[in-house]
Order: sequence, then structure tokens, then C-alpha cells
Amino acid sequence: MTAIRVGWIGTGVMGAPMCGHLMASGYPVTVFNRTRERARSLLERGAAWADSPRAVAQHADVVFTMVGFPDDVREVVLGPAGALAGAGRGTILVDMTTSEPSLAREIYEAAHGRGVASLDAPVSGGDIGAREAHLSIMVGGERDVFERAAPLLRCLGTTIVHQGPAGAGQHTKMANQILVASGMVAVCEALLYAYKAGLDLPTVLQSVSGGAAGSWSLTHYAPRILARDFVPGFLVDHFIKDMGIALAEAQRMRLSLPGLALVEQLYLALAAQGDGRKGTHALVLALARLSAVEWPATPSAPPPPR
Amino acid sequence: MTAIRVGWIGTGVMGAPMCGHLMASGYPVTVFNRTRERARSLLERGAAWADSPRAVAQHADVVFTMVGFPDDVREVVLGPAGALAGAGRGTILVDMTTSEPSLAREIYEAAHGRGVASLDAPVSGGDIGAREAHLSIMVGGERDVFERAAPLLRCLGTTIVHQGPAGAGQHTKMANQILVASGMVAVCEALLYAYKAGLDLPTVLQSVSGGAAGSWSLTHYAPRILARDFVPGFLVDHFIKDMGIALAEAQRMRLSLPGLALVEQLYLALAAQGDGRKGTHALVLALARLSAVEWPATPSAPPPPR
Repeated sequence: MTAIRVGWIGTGVMGAPMCGHLMASGYPVTVFNRTRERARSLLERGAAWADSPRAVAQHADVVFTMVGFPDDVREVVLGPAGALAGAGRGTILVDMTTSEPSLAREIYEAAHGRGVASLDAPVSGGDIGAREAHLSIMVGGERDVFERAAPLLRCLGTTIVHQGPAGAGQHTKMANQILVASGMVAVCEALLYAYKAGLDLPTVLQSVSGGAAGSWSLTHYAPRILARDFVPGFLVDHFIKDMGIALAEAQRMRLSLPGLALVEQLYLALAAQGDGRKGTHALVLALARLSAVEWPATPSAPPPPR
Repeated sequence: MTAIRVGWIGTGVMGAPMCGHLMASGYPVTVFNRTRERARSLLERGAAWADSPRAVAQHADVVFTMVGFPDDVREVVLGPAGALAGAGRGTILVDMTTSEPSLAREIYEAAHGRGVASLDAPVSGGDIGAREAHLSIMVGGERDVFERAAPLLRCLGTTIVHQGPAGAGQHTKMANQILVASGMVAVCEALLYAYKAGLDLPTVLQSVSGGAAGSWSLTHYAPRILARDFVPGFLVDHFIKDMGIALAEAQRMRLSLPGLALVEQLYLALAAQGDGRKGTHALVLALARLSAVEWPATPSAPPPPR
């Protein structure tokens, strides 16, 4: 049996370590990236280079895409130099970008018409999850295609779930992002309230983290917010993209999501204030500015007067 | 050494089991409740009855109050037949009701003037936490008073933290409720989105529960929301009280909390729709009605057309 040939398009902060896991598992890999320099470490480890997504697909049985925005997905998959143009019958296209459910269905239809299979397989877990191969991968597409791709996906993550037909992976990711969005408002408003009330924030966290108010975001982001460490796990600008997709899909489904709509507006404000390249937990800065609160540089900074 | 004599005012769904834990630990207890019948099981187990909060305090070294609303706290602590009127010098008044930080400070001042000590010590963990004695107890007041009351509090909970001066316990509870409030919007909007998108909700939970979108609320409430089980863990009407306190305190501190303000409005709508006596996770019903979505009776009900 010949090894499955892997193509990988998009070798950024997520894509590069993910592609590396497949190489480490012994799959022969051909890569393309808009900026070749960012693929260098993979090339040095033995990946082949191709000059376009189309050329990648010509040398691969399964082609992964992990790029930035839906327009990028459209270009690298459906464009004239895109992967679909180079894909032979039986090839599987796996888009792991967080993108539009409707685009996932469009890709499915276009690929299907040429005897090419496709999956939408966005992930959660961030750059750390990508590096440590413990991503949650939410997959839409035909079940038998999912089963064929599953051994490769298991090199990248620990929670690999088939969610339904084409687009279902993206829809699941949107549900994930809706949870994250209002969850971050919860964390930031609670910390801001506690700060204005003159409480000692680490002590507050002792009381509220273990019970009904607890969350992954509180556990992982509150300490960074208290330390004023806004280095991105996940970029504000990318989160705004995701919320825009979710709200557009909700509008298409005639579904009102007032909480998500508010969070999007707060993040748009945060980006307008110049913080689009910070991490999503920088939301506390926009909320602090709203009330002219200066967020302290360290948790030991003196609290404001009672 | 004579055993500390305990007074307990308010033997409802929270207070009765909490008082029972102190009795089980060997403390002699005198109780009062507006409806005597609801204290019966404690009286049968050997608690003494007193005809007023004042009379309770006349027979106790530490007097706990666990009642409904701030007005109730004011009456049973500061009223003419309240605990303070009966308390001797050195008595400790411990209000465990979720109530106003400003009222906690008012009680502290009034008590202090008579040589009586006080703590505000609201809890999280709900009726189950009360029954199983694993509450989180957030305490405001003087540290030495906290240390004196701590052995009794440890009979009631597992996380007992001194948060600062009078009012700090209530402020911490407000931070807890701010987390819970937007966290519930997150859970309900995400489930509603996933449902409208035609996804299988238990399968979605497999993908999103373990990572950055995970929370106590998602783990504990989502299954009940899917089962359309809206039996209260925590009542909508009581949660509206808590959010009202938090928003009033925030206004006093000149702090804008747009997320919390929106959640309060959604819960006011839910109560207006007749669901004030359901559990807080019934928020999904108000959000569903907003978009004329009929929330299915069981997770296996057919999804709406795509």
C-alpha cells in the first residue's frame, strides 16, 4: 500500500505545526504558502514545495487548507490556481480554516461535480492546541469521506467529531465561538466590577472559579488579564471575522442573537481603538475605557477609591 | 468551654439544610422562620424555636440570616423585632443572603455602634451545595470576626474566603453573578444557533465542551436545556434580584456593564412571559421566542428544515 500523499496550503501559526505532525507521522507532504519563507522549517524537514495550491493538489491525495479568511479559502480552493483545479478524482479537500458554512457547501458542490470529495474541518484549541496536537476538530461532509480522512485528523487533535453534512463543521465552530464570545464578556465585566468595587482580584478568583461561575476562559484568561498580558492566544481581528460569519448565518436563518450582536459591537470598538492585533481577552480594555477606568498594570496596583 | 450558641433565621430551601449541618456538628441552635411549618424538621431534630429574630439573638452568640430579598434582610436584622435589637455585645451577625453591599455596610455600622460584630457571607453552590455542604462562601467584614466565625462556616462549605471589609462578600457574589449571567447567554445562544443550523446538539456538545468554550454552565445546564427540563436549580426571579443589585451598585460606582444590562433585560422578558419560577437556564425559552423558534421537547425531536 502506497502512503497517502498529503498537500498542505497555509503554513502560518496554526498550519505549520499541524502540517509538521503529519510529516512526523510519516506522510509525504507537499506545501504551498503565500509567503514561502514561513514554510521554510517544513521544507528543511523534507516537505516538497509547490508553486500554487493547484500544483499542491496535483501531487496529493488529501489536500488541507488552513488560511485566514473566507476570501482566502475561496481563492486557494476554488480560484483558477486553486486546489480543486489540480485535484484528481478521489482526492479529498479538507478546509480547516474557520470559514462560512455556506462556502463549505459551495466547495462541496463544486468538488462533487468533479468527482472530488471535501470536508469542512475547523478546529478549536488555538496555537497551543495546534503545537501539542490536542485540537478539537469539527467535521462536516459525507461520513465515508470523514472515515477516510480520520486517520490523518487524528494526527492533529484529540477530539475528532463528524457533525453532519457539508457546512456542519463550520456551524459547530460558530456555536463554539458564540460560547467563547459571551463567555469573554462575562469574564471581563466581572473582573472590572470587582476591581471598581475595590476587591483583591486574585482573592475573588479563589471564590468564584470553582463553582457555577467557572469556565475555561476564567481559568485561562483571568490571570493574563490581571497581569495585563494581552499577547494573543487568539487575535481580536480574527475573532471579529468569526462573529461576523456567525451573525450573517444567523441572519440568513432568521435567528436573533442579541448577546452575540452586542459582543461583536464591543470587539469592533476594541479594534477601532487600535487593539485588533491583541488577544481576545483585551476586551477588558474596551470595557474599561467605556467607563474611563484605567486598567492597572499589575494586580497589586492600588484599587480606586471606594 | 461552653459551646457556641447558634441562631438561625430563614429555614427555606437553602437555610434549612445549612442550619442542619450546624446542628449535626453539635452546636445548639435556636431558629426563627416567617412560616414556622418550614422549620419543623429542624425543630423535630432538637432546634429551639424563638418567636422573632430578636428573640433568636437573645439566645445566640452567632446569628445567621438566610432570607430572600434585601428588604427581608433589613427587617430581620435592623427592624424593631430584628436580630440586632436582641444581640448582646460580642454577638456576631452573619448575613448569608445574597443582598446589597451597601446594606451590608449599613448593618456593619449599626452593629458596630452597639458592640456587635457582623459579616456578609453570601454563597454560591445552590440548593445542592447547601445540602452537601460544599458551598463557596464569600465573606466581608473584619478579619478577626471572620476568624471567629470560620469554624462554623466550615460546616457549611468547602471554599471559605475572606474578601475584605463589610460589603466585600456581597461584591464578590455580584462578580460571581455577572459571570453566571453572560455565561448563560453564551450557552443558550449557542444551543439555539446549533439547533437552527440543523445540527445534532449532543454531538455538538462533544466538540465544544472540552475546550476554550467549556464552562460549568455548559456542562451542567446544556443537558437539561436539551431535555427541556427547567426545574429550578436557581430561580429566574431570584436571579433578576441579583442582577438588579449588581447593576445598581455598578451605577453607583459609575461603571457601565453593557453585557449584564442586556442579560437583565432578557431575563425581565422571560419573567414577563410567565417563567419567573423556572430555573435560570430557561433563558433559552425567551431567546427562542424572540425568533419564533419552538424549542423541542427532547433532543431527538426533528430539527427545523435547513
